[in-house]
Amino acid sequence: MPDILHRVGIAAEPMRVFHALTTVEGIRHWWNETIQGDASEGAAFQFGSNRLEVVQADPSLVTWRYSGPAKAWEPTEITFRLEWRDVQTIVLFKQGGCSEPVEFMHHCSTKWATFLLSLKDYVEKGEGRPEPSRDMKITIDG
Amino acid sequence: MPDILHRVGIAAEPMRVFHALTTVEGIRHWWNETIQGDASEGAAFQFGSNRLEVVQADPSLVTWRYSGPAKAWEPTEITFRLEWRDVQTIVLFKQGGCSEPVEFMHHCSTKWATFLLSLKDYVEKGEGRPEPSRDMKITIDG
Repeated sequence: MPDILHRVGIAAEPMRVFHALTTVEGIRHWWNETIQGDASEGAAFQFGSNRLEVVQADPSLVTWRYSGPAKAWEPTEITFRLEWRDVQTIVLFKQGGCSEPVEFMHHCSTKWATFLLSLKDYVEKGEGRPEPSRDMKITIDG
Repeated sequence: MPDILHRVGIAAEPMRVFHALTTVEGIRHWWNETIQGDASEGAAFQFGSNRLEVVQADPSLVTWRYSGPAKAWEPTEITFRLEWRDVQTIVLFKQGGCSEPVEFMHHCSTKWATFLLSLKDYVEKGEGRPEPSRDMKITIDG
């Protein structure tokens, strides 16, 4: 069962990263501009028809569970571990539970890297690159 | 045994991508400026003390084997599958054979995404972002 793993270091205190991960306003600035809902623990948020439940929102660990409708992503958990190290917040990212290493998973892995760099830019500089209009394109199609 | 998977689509014919993957001059423009050696099939190239053997260099599949000295990467194979689809060359990347999902693997996964986007920029626009001086920084340290 393959996982998508990533790491970025953000030159800001963990609580600023935590805020960007646990508020809809924050998530809109680095992942998807159309997010609706509530990103605090126990709540859920949506973009398009996709729905994510916030399983955990601790300052050192944020966990989302994807609850549909894309079958290729279900069931999957997305976790962000936050750890302050001297001058930066290290973010360890994992999307687990993908059933097969299909081509879509290759795509998601590269796309997550761009969104984590977008999270870094948003927290450090105030400007991220969320989809659908400002995300970094990795193919002709998106 | 976790793998690092990525996908990019490059708006250029496969032979241009193949050239960027199988010549030292090409690799210097998107991965590492200090690469020395020969990147054709059966040969090997180096950067710093790291050595990669070119196991296969077919127009649809390029395979490198890392042969040291970093233990965290050994034994590992890096493959690039190239497939032309209408308007772009789809590159499916895999670094397999990492023994454990350690933090270094999270780092390598994100860093590979930036180098594949660098490969895309180099082939499409003539300018990549190779390390050590022009790579996209994902942490304070590199």
